[in-house]
Formats: sequence, structure tokens, C-alpha cells
Amino acid sequence: MPIDSGLLDDLRAFLPVLGDAAAKESLKYFRQQPDIDNKLDAGFDPVTVADRNAERAIRALIEEHFPDHGIDGEEFAQKPANGPFRWSLDPIDGTRAYIAGLPSWGTLVALLYEDDPILGMIDQPYLGERYIGAPDGTTLNGKPVQTRPLDSLSGAIAMTTDPALFQAGERPRYDRLAETCRLVRYGFDCYAYAVLASGHIDLVIESGLKTHDMLALIPVVRGAGGSATDWSGHPASGEDQILALGNPALLDEAIDLLSA
Amino acid sequence: MPIDSGLLDDLRAFLPVLGDAAAKESLKYFRQQPDIDNKLDAGFDPVTVADRNAERAIRALIEEHFPDHGIDGEEFAQKPANGPFRWSLDPIDGTRAYIAGLPSWGTLVALLYEDDPILGMIDQPYLGERYIGAPDGTTLNGKPVQTRPLDSLSGAIAMTTDPALFQAGERPRYDRLAETCRLVRYGFDCYAYAVLASGHIDLVIESGLKTHDMLALIPVVRGAGGSATDWSGHPASGEDQILALGNPALLDEAIDLLSA
Repeated sequence: MPIDSGLLDDLRAFLPVLGDAAAKESLKYFRQQPDIDNKLDAGFDPVTVADRNAERAIRALIEEHFPDHGIDGEEFAQKPANGPFRWSLDPIDGTRAYIAGLPSWGTLVALLYEDDPILGMIDQPYLGERYIGAPDGTTLNGKPVQTRPLDSLSGAIAMTTDPALFQAGERPRYDRLAETCRLVRYGFDCYAYAVLASGHIDLVIESGLKTHDMLALIPVVRGAGGSATDWSGHPASGEDQILALGNPALLDEAIDLLSA
Repeated sequence: MPIDSGLLDDLRAFLPVLGDAAAKESLKYFRQQPDIDNKLDAGFDPVTVADRNAERAIRALIEEHFPDHGIDGEEFAQKPANGPFRWSLDPIDGTRAYIAGLPSWGTLVALLYEDDPILGMIDQPYLGERYIGAPDGTTLNGKPVQTRPLDSLSGAIAMTTDPALFQAGERPRYDRLAETCRLVRYGFDCYAYAVLASGHIDLVIESGLKTHDMLALIPVVRGAGGSATDWSGHPASGEDQILALGNPALLDEAIDLLSA
């Protein structure tokens, strides 16, 4: 059942409110050497006061304006939904970049309707770039953006955050795809999907993502004309593998290269 | 022989003039899908009208104001010096990032006095960040910046553009160093040295750099309190290997890890 378009517009208009509230917290501590906690016993998964305060700010606004909506955020306990709507939040996606002073982190917010991500926001307040994706299109700071219609992977610019993150069995599959592309760039976390949606690159491939890392990206990519699937070509499930393409017509070629 | 401080100030004040002229050209084409030429027969080394026009703009200003100075730029023929001063120019370092719409490229300008890089600029006009290094300090948009005094590599944030770029014999040496650090981030080209100089990360390691890629970085890193050497701890020669450290006291520890 599609949701009412007036309600969709209201919900879409709420995303910048959430972005502004999160940005106030994230920018306050960016490049200010906030204390860093490690969420892992073995390994390093950093979290800062900025992650926590930004998520608190978003949650407070949702609870105030949409008390029946569920909330699933990276840093705090899940709030169950009383109805079909649920929010997925990553207050600072790319905390590693954030603590390194690099402006490639972003605030990710997705709104799910019956588990389907219908709205997504990638907000990069240091750059002043806010990408919002919906079924009827994706905007950058309110202006429509579109992916570009590249006609072959051999001319593609591809991105991934870190090839060392792939599982052993995934690496040769990734390598085949990457070697076919014209250029591969690393780093940049969620911002890679933003430059794909605005037509500057052609492909993003990652794995091991959690729901908070991925759900917001899907409406942004699809609304701009791209596709978001797993490595087998099925619609992205919201976690683990993602293959985002600016031109969905290249999906078969990409899936062939990725087949194990 | 140290150069006269009044002359040094005049030359330092000239760097923003060069940065503004280059930025006018680089920003004009950024994210505008300029035509891309490939400088290699095998492989992909992109160059655009923005690289060429930005270098032309810088060269014209140097020739007008300092006709005796030599000019060694990435895109055009060398102009011999009539005296001790020579400029090294990379109008867009990180052209791969530039054509991917990523704001991690930068305009690099170095001034050499008797082959010693005494002034360096890393200019990132999309971010509005201009780093200028000199013997008496490094500034970001005119305000002094300094590296941070991390006391052990085990807490370090390290960066490199792409670990696949290392030579076979270099890779295990790099891996030992990288595994000792707390966190490694990829991508970002010259901008990694900018965040090192401003105290957000602790180490940058690369190899295979050309003179245009490296000379401007050295005064920026050293002026902020860091060290810039090759992988053996000798002062950076201006090409191939570089190891930049925010805290020079960590050099022995890093060199031990890098010893073949």
C-alpha cells in the first residue's frame, strides 16, 4: 500500500529538521579532539560524544513529532513502533573519518514503511551538502540530482571504503569487478553514495554493512535513477552486501563479474 | 644562506594570489564532467582542461611578478631559472579524485631556494582551506596550525592513498608499520598532509611520488612541527618515498618498523 502523498511530503520536510539538529552536535566536536571510546574488546570501533549527542538530538525530535514511530539507532536501545513507520539512524557514519578530521563522514537517516526504506538522507554538514532520496527523486540541497548513464563498466569510476574489509571469498569477486572498471577510489564511507547519486561516479561496492550504515543510502541511490542490490542482483536487504550502480542497465554485467 | 626575511614575506604573500588564480579554474570545472584525457598508453593517468588552465594561470602570474624564477609544472615544459628560485607546481594533485567529484584534491605550489623547498601551499578551494608552510610556521587560512604530540605509534591514525601503489618489496614494510597503528585511512591524496599538519592524524606514508606531488607538502608538514623523511629517515628528497610524522620523536620507532 503506497502511503498518502501529503504524509510523504510532511515526512520528507522533517528530514532537514533532523539534519540540522544532528549537525549542531556533530560540527561542535569535529576537529576538536573529542574523547574516543572503543566499542570493541578486540579491534577498534570508535565512538565519541558527538555520535551520542547527535543521535539523542534526532531521537528527541522524532519522539516529539511522531510518537508512534519506531526508532532503531546505532548508539541507543531500539524503540518499538506502534504502526508501520520506523526510523533507522546512524548519527555519524564514518566515525573513523570523523576522528581523523576528514569530511567524508555523514549523518544517515532512513524512514521505513512496513520495513521498506522510503526516505533516506545523507547529510554532510561540514561540506554543506544534504542529499535526500524519495520514491519521486533525490535532491542535493533541494535541487534534483541524477546518476549518469554510463554505458559500460570499462569506463566506470568505482568506489569502496576499504578492500581489506571484504571476506576471503568475496575478495576475488570484488577484484574481478574492480579490474574491469576504469578507476577505483577508496575511503569516503557514505559520501561515495552521494557522489554516485549526483552523477560523478558510477559504482559503489561494499560488504559487512549494518542496517544503520545502509538503509538511508537505498532511497538516495534509487531516487537518483540508480540501483541498490546485493552482489547477486537482489534488492539490497539493508545489511551486509551492497552494489550501487548509477545505471541499472549495467547490473547484469556487474553481477556476471561478481558471480563466485 | 638564509634568504632575507622581507623577501620571504613577499614570496609568502604571493602564494594566496596563486591559489586564488588556480581555484578560479579548478572550481569552474569541478563536478561539471570536463573531458578527460589519458596521459598513459597503458593504464589511466587522467588530465583535464582544469589541470591545464590552472597551471597556465599560476605560470602567468609567476612570469609577470618574478620573471627570473624557474618554473617546473606537471603539465607544461620546464622554464629554467635565472637565479636561486624555482617553483614546483601541481595544479590539481589528485586528478582521479577531482574527476570523481571528491573534494580531496588540492593545488600544490612549492617555492625552492637553491633546491630546498622553503615555502609550500596545499590549497583546497572547494573546502575553503588553504595551508601555507614556511620555516617559521604553517597556517590554515592565516591561522597557525600545529601537529599533535602523540607519544606512541600504537595510538596513531595513519593515512596512505592506496596500499596497492607500493612496490612489492615495500608492501611488507608498510604492512608492519600500518599494523602497529591504531587506525589506517585511505584516499585523500595531498589532503592527508593537511590534516596531519593541523593535528588530526599522526602519520602519512606513500611511495612513487613525483616532485610535483611532494615538494609543497614538505614545508607544510615541517612548519607545523612534523617531520618529512624517506622510509630510511633521511630528509625527504622531493620524490618517491615519503614518511610524514606529526611528532618527529616517533621517527626511530617508525623507521625500525620500516627497515627491510
